[in-house]
Amino acid sequence: MGSDSDLPVMQAAADILSELGVCWTLDIVSAHRTPDRMFDYARNADGNGLRVIIAGAGGAAHLPGMVASLTELPVIGVPISATKLSGEDALLSIVQMPAGIPVATVAIDNATNGGLLAAQILAAGDSSDAQTLRKRLRAYRISLQEKVLAKAATNHSEG
Amino acid sequence: MGSDSDLPVMQAAADILSELGVCWTLDIVSAHRTPDRMFDYARNADGNGLRVIIAGAGGAAHLPGMVASLTELPVIGVPISATKLSGEDALLSIVQMPAGIPVATVAIDNATNGGLLAAQILAAGDSSDAQTLRKRLRAYRISLQEKVLAKAATNHSEG
Amino acid sequence: MGSDSDLPVMQAAADILSELGVCWTLDIVSAHRTPDRMFDYARNADGNGLRVIIAGAGGAAHLPGMVASLTELPVIGVPISATKLSGEDALLSIVQMPAGIPVATVAIDNATNGGLLAAQILAAGDSSDAQTLRKRLRAYRISLQEKVLAKAATNHSEG
Amino acid sequence: MGSDSDLPVMQAAADILSELGVCWTLDIVSAHRTPDRMFDYARNADGNGLRVIIAGAGGAAHLPGMVASLTELPVIGVPISATKLSGEDALLSIVQMPAGIPVATVAIDNATNGGLLAAQILAAGDSSDAQTLRKRLRAYRISLQEKVLAKAATNHSEG
Amino acid sequence: MGSDSDLPVMQAAADILSELGVCWTLDIVSAHRTPDRMFDYARNADGNGLRVIIAGAGGAAHLPGMVASLTELPVIGVPISATKLSGEDALLSIVQMPAGIPVATVAIDNATNGGLLAAQILAAGDSSDAQTLRKRLRAYRISLQEKVLAKAATNHSEG
Amino acid sequence: MGSDSDLPVMQAAADILSELGVCWTLDIVSAHRTPDRMFDYARNADGNGLRVIIAGAGGAAHLPGMVASLTELPVIGVPISATKLSGEDALLSIVQMPAGIPVATVAIDNATNGGLLAAQILAAGDSSDAQTLRKRLRAYRISLQEKVLAKAATNHSEG
Amino acid sequence: MGSDSDLPVMQAAADILSELGVCWTLDIVSAHRTPDRMFDYARNADGNGLRVIIAGAGGAAHLPGMVASLTELPVIGVPISATKLSGEDALLSIVQMPAGIPVATVAIDNATNGGLLAAQILAAGDSSDAQTLRKRLRAYRISLQEKVLAKAATNHSEG
Amino acid sequence: MGSDSDLPVMQAAADILSELGVCWTLDIVSAHRTPDRMFDYARNADGNGLRVIIAGAGGAAHLPGMVASLTELPVIGVPISATKLSGEDALLSIVQMPAGIPVATVAIDNATNGGLLAAQILAAGDSSDAQTLRKRLRAYRISLQEKVLAKAATNHSEG
Repeated sequence: MGSDSDLPVMQAAADILSELGVCWTLDIVSAHRTPDRMFDYARNADGNGLRVIIAGAGGAAHLPGMVASLTELPVIGVPISATKLSGEDALLSIVQMPAGIPVATVAIDNATNGGLLAAQILAAGDSSDAQTLRKRLRAYRISLQEKVLAKAATNHSEG
Repeated sequence: MGSDSDLPVMQAAADILSELGVCWTLDIVSAHRTPDRMFDYARNADGNGLRVIIAGAGGAAHLPGMVASLTELPVIGVPISATKLSGEDALLSIVQMPAGIPVATVAIDNATNGGLLAAQILAAGDSSDAQTLRKRLRAYRISLQEKVLAKAATNHSEG
Repeated sequence: MGSDSDLPVMQAAADILSELGVCWTLDIVSAHRTPDRMFDYARNADGNGLRVIIAGAGGAAHLPGMVASLTELPVIGVPISATKLSGEDALLSIVQMPAGIPVATVAIDNATNGGLLAAQILAAGDSSDAQTLRKRLRAYRISLQEKVLAKAATNHSEG
Repeated sequence: MGSDSDLPVMQAAADILSELGVCWTLDIVSAHRTPDRMFDYARNADGNGLRVIIAGAGGAAHLPGMVASLTELPVIGVPISATKLSGEDALLSIVQMPAGIPVATVAIDNATNGGLLAAQILAAGDSSDAQTLRKRLRAYRISLQEKVLAKAATNHSEG
Repeated sequence: MGSDSDLPVMQAAADILSELGVCWTLDIVSAHRTPDRMFDYARNADGNGLRVIIAGAGGAAHLPGMVASLTELPVIGVPISATKLSGEDALLSIVQMPAGIPVATVAIDNATNGGLLAAQILAAGDSSDAQTLRKRLRAYRISLQEKVLAKAATNHSEG
Repeated sequence: MGSDSDLPVMQAAADILSELGVCWTLDIVSAHRTPDRMFDYARNADGNGLRVIIAGAGGAAHLPGMVASLTELPVIGVPISATKLSGEDALLSIVQMPAGIPVATVAIDNATNGGLLAAQILAAGDSSDAQTLRKRLRAYRISLQEKVLAKAATNHSEG
Repeated sequence: MGSDSDLPVMQAAADILSELGVCWTLDIVSAHRTPDRMFDYARNADGNGLRVIIAGAGGAAHLPGMVASLTELPVIGVPISATKLSGEDALLSIVQMPAGIPVATVAIDNATNGGLLAAQILAAGDSSDAQTLRKRLRAYRISLQEKVLAKAATNHSEG
Repeated sequence: MGSDSDLPVMQAAADILSELGVCWTLDIVSAHRTPDRMFDYARNADGNGLRVIIAGAGGAAHLPGMVASLTELPVIGVPISATKLSGEDALLSIVQMPAGIPVATVAIDNATNGGLLAAQILAAGDSSDAQTLRKRLRAYRISLQEKVLAKAATNHSEG
C-alpha cells in the first residue's frame, strides 16, 4: 500500500489471508514518494518468492498499475476512497489499464476481496498446496453461506 | 460471455491466450436468459478442468459476479460498453462485488487484458508449466517494450 | 433482500404493505453467498403463491436481476446505498437489464415505493381483491395529499 | 410517450405486447407541451380500461412521474437517450421519485422491457387470462433461452 | 416548494426578497402528491398577480418544469439535495427541459440565488418600481463587494 | 457567445426571439480571449438598453457567470457541448454560481429555451409591451400544443 | 482565493511556500463579487512582481481561469470542494479551459500541491535563486521519502 | 507521450512551442510498457537540460504522475480521451495526485494549452530569454484577441 493511512482498509487483506493460512507480508511502498523502492520491490517480487501482489491506493492511484508494469506476477488493485471523490478516482486510475498490463481490480475499499482473490489465484494450480487452499476457500464459502442462512432464519418475518 | 454481440470484444482474450500457448474454450452463457446453463457451467467448471474463468458482459453485467458466486476458481470480469452509458454500468456491476466474492475486473472492452491476467494467474504457480508460461509472459512484455521503442525511434522529433 | 444490513431500508416495504392490508414475507436471500437458495427461492416463488417479488440490494446488486431471470413474476428492484458510491452502483446494476428480463426499479433506498408498486401491481387486475386494494391505494393517495395540504396550510407565509 | 421522436424507441413496447397477445394503444402525450391532455389521459386511464401505463421520455423526463401522480395504475417508465447526456438525465428524472408515487423504471431506451414488464404485471393475477399470459411469458423466456443455446452451439470455439 | 422538508433551503429565497423589498408568498405545492393543487396554482398564478415563480424540489424534481408548462410566467428552479445523489438528480430533472418550456435553473440548494434572480427579473423592466428595485440590487451588489473587501483587508497576509 | 463555433447552437435563440417580435443583437464576446471587451460589454449593457443577456459557452464556461457579476440585468446561461464531456463541464461551470450572483441556466445546447426565457422575463412586467409579448408567448405555447396534438392524432395506434 | 471560507484549504499553499523559503502574499479576490478588484489584481500582477499565481475557488470556479485570461503569468488552479458536488464542479470549471488560456490545475482541496507547483515553476530557471530553490525541492522530496521509509519500517508486518 | 496513438493530440503542443520559438523534443515513453525508459527519461531530464515536461496519456494515465515523482521539474499533464470514458478516467488519474507530487493538469485533449503553459513557465523568470518569451506570449494573446474581434465584427447580427 502507498501510505499508512491506507492501513485500516488494507489490514483486511492480511486478516483474510491469515484466516486461510496463506503467508503474507504487508509493506508501505509509495509510487510517488518512493519510486525507487517501488521499482525494486516490484522488480524483485518474483525473485523474493512472492506469487501475487495486492496493491491498495487512493486518488490518482498509480501503485497497482506501476507495480504491474514491473512484474509478470498477477497484481490485484484495491481502490481506496481517500479523496472527496469517494474512490471513483482511484477505481478509474486502477482499472482502466492499457492493453498489455492488466490489474485485477476489486471493489472500492474492499481489501477482503483483494485477499480472497489472491488466495483464489494461489489455489488455481494443481499442487497439493493449491488443493488444500481450494478446500479452505470452499469451507470459507460454506461459512459465508451458513451465516446468511442463520440470519435468514432469524430475520424471516411475515405480515 | 453473455451474448454473441460480445464476441468482437471477447475474441481478443482467446487470441492472446493462443499467442501464449494457453488452452481455452469460448462459450456463450447468459446469466439472465440461460440461468440454468450458467449455474451448471460455473458449478462444474472446476471439475471440468478449468483453472480460470474470463466472463465478459455489458449493461447490468451479472455474469462475472454470479459465476464467481458459484465457483472458487478465480473469475475475471470484462465490462463491455454495450449500452448508452459507455460501459460505466457494466464496470460498476462487475467490480463492486460484496466482501466474500471477488471478481478480478479489467478495463472496459479490454479482453486482451482479461486473457493476459488469466495467463498471469496460471503462471503464478511453481510447476514447470507455470514457469514456461511465465517465460512466455516475459517475452510478451519484452515484445511490447520493443514495439514502443521502435515507435519511439521513429516518432522522436525536435523543434 | 441480500443481507440483514439491508433490513433498515427494506422494512419500509413490509410496513407499507401491512398498512395496505397486503400479505408479505420478508426473507434474506443472497445472490452471491447463497446462490442455491436464491435459485430455489425464485424458481419456486410462483408455485409458493407469491405474486410479486421486491428485491433490495446494494453495490454490484445482482439479486433483483437474477431473481427476475428465474421467474416470470414481476420483480421490483430497490437499489440500496451500501457503498461509497451512494447507490449509483446499485441503481445501474439493477436498472440496466438486457432486453428480455426487466426489473421494475424504484428510487435509491426507497423501499416504501417498492411496496407501493407491488400493491399497485396486485391492484391492477379485475378481481374483487384487486378492486378492494385499489380503493386502499386511492385512500392512501388522499391521505398523502391531505398531509401535504395540512403542511401547506401551516407553512404558508408571505412577506 | 412525450414526442413522436420517441417513436422508434417506444414501438418496441407495442411489438412485444402484440407478440404476447396483449392489447395496447400507443399515444403521444407531452407532459410539458400538452399538460391538460396528460392530466385527462392519466386521470381517466383507469376508467378507460387501461391496466398498466408505459411512459417513455427523455431529458427532464417528467411524463412517467406525473402520470404516476395522477393514477393508481402501475406506471412503467422508459428513460430515452434524447440529449447529450446519454439518457442519464432521463433515468434520474424517472427513477428518483419521492416516497408515495413509484415509477417502475426499466433500462435506458429499453422499451421491450417496458412491454414485458407490463405483460408480467397483467399476468400476475389469478384470472384465466392472467394464467394464459403467464404461459406465453414462459414460452417467450424459453424462446430467448433457445436462441442463446443455438448461438452458444454455433459460437463455441476452443484453442 | 414540494415539501416542508425543503423549507430550510427555500426560506433563503424569501429572506433575500424581503431584504430587497419584494413581496412574496411561500407555499407548499407537491407536483406528485397534490397535482391538482399544482395545476390550479400554476394556471392561476398570472391571474393572481404573481410575476415570477421560484420552485424548489429534490430527487426526480418535477415541480419547476410542470409549473413552467402551465404558465407563461418565468419559472426559476432550485435543485435541492434531498437524496443520496447530492442534488445531481434534481439538477438534471430541472435543467434538462425540452425546447419550448424553459426553467431558469440556479445552483443546488442555492435559494438565495433563486430569490435574487426573481428580483433581477422584476427589475428588468422600465417602470419606476423596476428602477427602484434595480437600485436596491445595485446596493446589494455593493454590499457584497464591501464584505469581500473587508475580509480581504483582514485576511491579507504575506510570508 | 464566446466563439463563432457556438453560432450553430446560439442562432436558435435569435430565431425564437424574432419569431416572438423581440429585438436582439448577437455578439461574440470571449471571457478568456477578450476579457476587456467582455468587461465593457457587460458593464455597459444596461446603459445600452439591453434588458436581458443570453450567454452561451462550452467547457470551462465562464462567460455567463462573469457577465452576471458585472451587471444587475438577468443573465441566462446556455451550456454548450463543446468538449468530450458532452456539456456536463459547461453545465456545472454555469449553474453552480455562488450566492449573490445567479445565472438562469437552461438545458445543454438549448438556446431556444434561452430565447424563450428571455422573452418570458421581458413579458413579466405590466407594461403594454409586456402584455403584448405575453400574448405572443401564449400563442406560441398553443402552437406547440397543436403540433403535439396533430402528431398525436397521426401517430395513435392500437394493437 | 475567492472567499475567506477557502482559507482553511488555501493556507496550506502559503505554508509549503514558507517552508521552501519562497515569498508569497495571500489575498481574497472574488471573481464574482469583486470583478474590478480581480481585474486590477490580475492585470497588475506581473508589474507588481508576482511570478506565479495560485488561485483557489469552489463551485462554478471562475477565478483561476479569469485571472489566467488577464495575465501571461502561469496560473495554478486549486479546485475547492465547497458544494454538494464534492469539488467535481470546481474541477471541471477550472481544468476545462479553452485552447489559448491554460490553468495548471491540481487535485481537489490540494493547496499544498498548488504551492509546490509554484515553487517548481520558480525553480525551473537557471538563475542561482532557481538553483537554490531546486535544491530545497530536492530536499523536500527526500524528506517525504524518508517519512514513508520510516512508516514502512514501522508498519511492515508478516503473517 | 505514452503511445504513438497520442501523437495527433500531442503534436499541438510541439506546434505552439515552435510558434513561440521554444525548443522541444517529442518522445514516446510508456509508463507501463517501458517503465525503465520512463525512469531514465524522468531521472535524467533535468541533467539533460529539460526545464519543463509535458506528458500526455489516456485511460489509467500514470505517465504524468510517475514522471513527476522522478524529477523536481514542473510536469504538465494532458489527459487524452483514449477510452470509452471520454477522458474522464485520464483526467482523474492525472489531476488527483497526492500532496507532495503535483501535476499541472490542463483540459482533456488540449495539448495546445500544455504547450502554452510550458512556455508561460519558461517565461516566468527574470532572464532576458524569459522576457523575450513573455513578449511573444503577450503577442500571442493579442493575436487570439484580434481573431475573436475579427469574428465578432463579421458575426454581429441584430433582429
